[in-house]
Amino acid sequence: MADSELPTRPKPEETPAAAPAAEGETKNASKNAAKKAAKEKAKAEKAAARAAQEKAQAAAQEANDTAKGLYGVLPETEDVISTTRFSHLTEDSYEKEVTVVARVDNARVQSAKLAFLMLRQQGQKVQAVIAAHEPISRQMIKYTGGLNVNSIVQVTGVVKKPEIPISSATIQHLELHIRKVYMISEAAQMLPMQVKDAERPPPTEEKEGEGEVDESGAPIVTLKTRLDNRVLDLQTETSQAITWISSGVAELFAEYMIKSGSRWIFTPKLVGAATEGGSNVFEVKYFKRTGYLAQSPQLYKQMCIAGDMENVFEIAPVFRAEDSNTHRHLTEFAGLDFEKTFEKHYHEVLEFAEDLLVFILSQLKARYAPQIATIQKSYPKAGDFKLPKDGKALRLNYMDGVALLKEAGVDMSEQERFENDFTTAMEKQLGQIIREKYDTDFYVLDKFPMAVRPFYTKADPKDARFSNSYDFFMRGEEIMSGAQRINDIKELEESMRSKGLDPTQEGFEDYLNAFRQGCPPHAGGGLGMNRIVMFFLGLPNVRLASLFPRDPQRLRP
Amino acid sequence: MADSELPTRPKPEETPAAAPAAEGETKNASKNAAKKAAKEKAKAEKAAARAAQEKAQAAAQEANDTAKGLYGVLPETEDVISTTRFSHLTEDSYEKEVTVVARVDNARVQSAKLAFLMLRQQGQKVQAVIAAHEPISRQMIKYTGGLNVNSIVQVTGVVKKPEIPISSATIQHLELHIRKVYMISEAAQMLPMQVKDAERPPPTEEKEGEGEVDESGAPIVTLKTRLDNRVLDLQTETSQAITWISSGVAELFAEYMIKSGSRWIFTPKLVGAATEGGSNVFEVKYFKRTGYLAQSPQLYKQMCIAGDMENVFEIAPVFRAEDSNTHRHLTEFAGLDFEKTFEKHYHEVLEFAEDLLVFILSQLKARYAPQIATIQKSYPKAGDFKLPKDGKALRLNYMDGVALLKEAGVDMSEQERFENDFTTAMEKQLGQIIREKYDTDFYVLDKFPMAVRPFYTKADPKDARFSNSYDFFMRGEEIMSGAQRINDIKELEESMRSKGLDPTQEGFEDYLNAFRQGCPPHAGGGLGMNRIVMFFLGLPNVRLASLFPRDPQRLRP
Repeated sequence: MADSELPTRPKPEETPAAAPAAEGETKNASKNAAKKAAKEKAKAEKAAARAAQEKAQAAAQEANDTAKGLYGVLPETEDVISTTRFSHLTEDSYEKEVTVVARVDNARVQSAKLAFLMLRQQGQKVQAVIAAHEPISRQMIKYTGGLNVNSIVQVTGVVKKPEIPISSATIQHLELHIRKVYMISEAAQMLPMQVKDAERPPPTEEKEGEGEVDESGAPIVTLKTRLDNRVLDLQTETSQAITWISSGVAELFAEYMIKSGSRWIFTPKLVGAATEGGSNVFEVKYFKRTGYLAQSPQLYKQMCIAGDMENVFEIAPVFRAEDSNTHRHLTEFAGLDFEKTFEKHYHEVLEFAEDLLVFILSQLKARYAPQIATIQKSYPKAGDFKLPKDGKALRLNYMDGVALLKEAGVDMSEQERFENDFTTAMEKQLGQIIREKYDTDFYVLDKFPMAVRPFYTKADPKDARFSNSYDFFMRGEEIMSGAQRINDIKELEESMRSKGLDPTQEGFEDYLNAFRQGCPPHAGGGLGMNRIVMFFLGLPNVRLASLFPRDPQRLRP
Repeated sequence: MADSELPTRPKPEETPAAAPAAEGETKNASKNAAKKAAKEKAKAEKAAARAAQEKAQAAAQEANDTAKGLYGVLPETEDVISTTRFSHLTEDSYEKEVTVVARVDNARVQSAKLAFLMLRQQGQKVQAVIAAHEPISRQMIKYTGGLNVNSIVQVTGVVKKPEIPISSATIQHLELHIRKVYMISEAAQMLPMQVKDAERPPPTEEKEGEGEVDESGAPIVTLKTRLDNRVLDLQTETSQAITWISSGVAELFAEYMIKSGSRWIFTPKLVGAATEGGSNVFEVKYFKRTGYLAQSPQLYKQMCIAGDMENVFEIAPVFRAEDSNTHRHLTEFAGLDFEKTFEKHYHEVLEFAEDLLVFILSQLKARYAPQIATIQKSYPKAGDFKLPKDGKALRLNYMDGVALLKEAGVDMSEQERFENDFTTAMEKQLGQIIREKYDTDFYVLDKFPMAVRPFYTKADPKDARFSNSYDFFMRGEEIMSGAQRINDIKELEESMRSKGLDPTQEGFEDYLNAFRQGCPPHAGGGLGMNRIVMFFLGLPNVRLASLFPRDPQRLRP
């Protein structure tokens, strides 16, 4: 049986004994067989006659067609045709014949003798022209100009310099003069939305009346329509670029972690107890029991540290059953987690994490400049992401943040009394203050009040009101939370009780045993990949930074 | 609120209005307060008196202790002591003072003047000795020899050459003469199993009577005990090495894919319909609906291809609600998936995948030789994993496999009639035949009968009884299944119907629309990471190749 593919049928020895077929079935089925067969025979004869007629007509037309074999169904050939990527087309290609495989972004018959195709490859667009001259026939021009939008075609043609740049193409300084055009995969005539309409950003606030047009008369495609038709939406230049940035964040995270000697771990997502905070956990039917989906790898990555793994990371989905319908909440997102022992002070790990983020964000700029430029065309509002000039993260204490906001006239009394963490609005305002004062969109707050952190957080040994914990921010929004963890069993049990948790509760046993058996001092953090992409690019909605987003309302596609 | 960390408490603006406290609570609680307080006061006074007495005794003893401050609680110091890793200890370290942080693998008092520690660091062991001479006191020797096994200690000492190699240590040519020993994290006195007992492989068949001893008198630790106490089990040298190999497989997979220009994708694990084969799917309570856990990223990675992503890969958990209790089935495992377009023939992708496996397996040998050697000490039976000498995978057709087995006298009539795939026993026997004939433990079977493959598999255009699909094998066990996929909507719907599936069934809509909108030819495959580790190393059970394994019986730790 297949391992990671979809299961097909079980191996013979794994098949449970088949239930005997119900006897009635075959008897009843044969009753009306004769009647049915006669009807179907007559039907088939009619269809055959019609098909023969159509074939004869087509043959007559084909006999007159000088372009026979140059278009339509791809001829079977043993020659492997090497195709050219749009990104490899340059001025050196002028007057050369190339073969490309691309989508029809648009097809238009200008006259009986002239048609245009706009071809699209991963968002890039090249214009192709077909004009009547031997052997290209009017039939071939009609076929080409009538191609269904979004079909995938193989086009052979000569690259020419156009008289004026093709303003509607992304590659404007060349066009393709078509010699052959074959269908690779035909799209249906009616699509739920046009990819070219989804190239424009969605309206910022979802408005009533989908299908309406903007000032220029172009249809407005809402975020909902895009996400409902995500496969089409992924074909836009902007989506192509965003998915590259997501890929890049994961790659850069793994690269940095591996270079540091960290071990890649895979902790279970199916867990036996809802230890991580009751109502926000998804319940799973696990055979005859109830299981849960892990809300984070927190407890397990700490158990790996207790298992002497010293430096570990994980890249895996994180599940939150939170009924939050906001622009930045998903019920499933990609978590980038790490956990690490240290020698003397948790700042060793904090600095490691700060350098990680500076590495990811600066390398994104270095490796994905074209993609970033593409995305900024659609989402210019946030502007370039500012990194600290000296390559070191800006680190402030939580109370410095409180002071900055107070200075700006914000009522911080609840925060000064450690009753509450910052509100989202406070965080955003602090982001602006820090950008103005320190010229950076990435910064770290250290030393959060113990009252607002989870039970496993280590208190500051010098001032128990605070903790050895930190949050990372991009453009004033949190992308990572982390801390030194309590590694002493007594301290841990005490902390649980002080937070109203019962250490003897079912499900905590394995976690707590890890500390009873000795565990080195350690710290770590968890990043939200989709949020990094969102805030780095200044996207208005985290759903744009997820391939197939999940929220309380959305479980498809 | 934290993103990827465990949620703590919601932001103030996200807090639902708190329910008023039940009034009765406080009234009843204060009733017996006076009585209780009096009792507790008396108790506290007693405890204080006892503590004072103990303190006085300890002080008297301490006053006589010449080693005061050299052991026990780690003194707070601003000096960052740089510690040495066991792996950096060499003959150059002789006569030098080093500081190490390690676990106590064993502690033994020889006499009032002499004690031994076996120290362990990620499975590596070094012996440490403490002998009475100024300033080391008898108290310090007693403390050191009495340390709880598995505690983490910081030891400073001088590296010496022992008179004879320390046979019980893994680093045998040196020992540490202790000068200081401090507690970093104390382990409980009683552990559910000893790490040193788990260093020996588990009994091959689970026997009754846990806690029994083997011929040498050493306790037998069953697989169940190990997995129940996985954090301790991870501390063994063998587990440390296996987790490095797992990490390596994921790393090498990502490395190869990224080098090929592939995009890293994260497809949803929460899905809206059980399209992937009914009863083997886990059900999730998704707010007010029912959701399911994805059994593979199959449909989604194909939708990414339809979304013009061309070359994608995913590293993510795969969930199977199969009630299979075998040595090689897990309900959750790490899937390594890829999907890729091709120009002319699916063998372009097949060759890409063959080279991927040769890369992973040969690089494991190159980069993880010490870990492989460690594991072979415990699991020598399978022997070295044999790779094809010329660096190219051996590829046979499915029917060649049938012929080889028939030649060996196996009844292959069901397989010749395409009624069934190979049984597991047949696969294993074929593995042996191929090893003898071709001298390789890795090989590929191509062209499986269409009857035994899933609906989305492309039939062989030259012989519809077969399909453009392949399985990869290691030591006669399947580690990957893959195929060219049908990319034409009509062909796909027909294939579904011929397999008894209804294309109009809820949940298939988004998948099928992807093909209605045009999709390029593509192929791919899905690897089981844990199985690669298991078969590469010749481990007897896949649970040994999973950090915290999940099976129908096991949902913890």
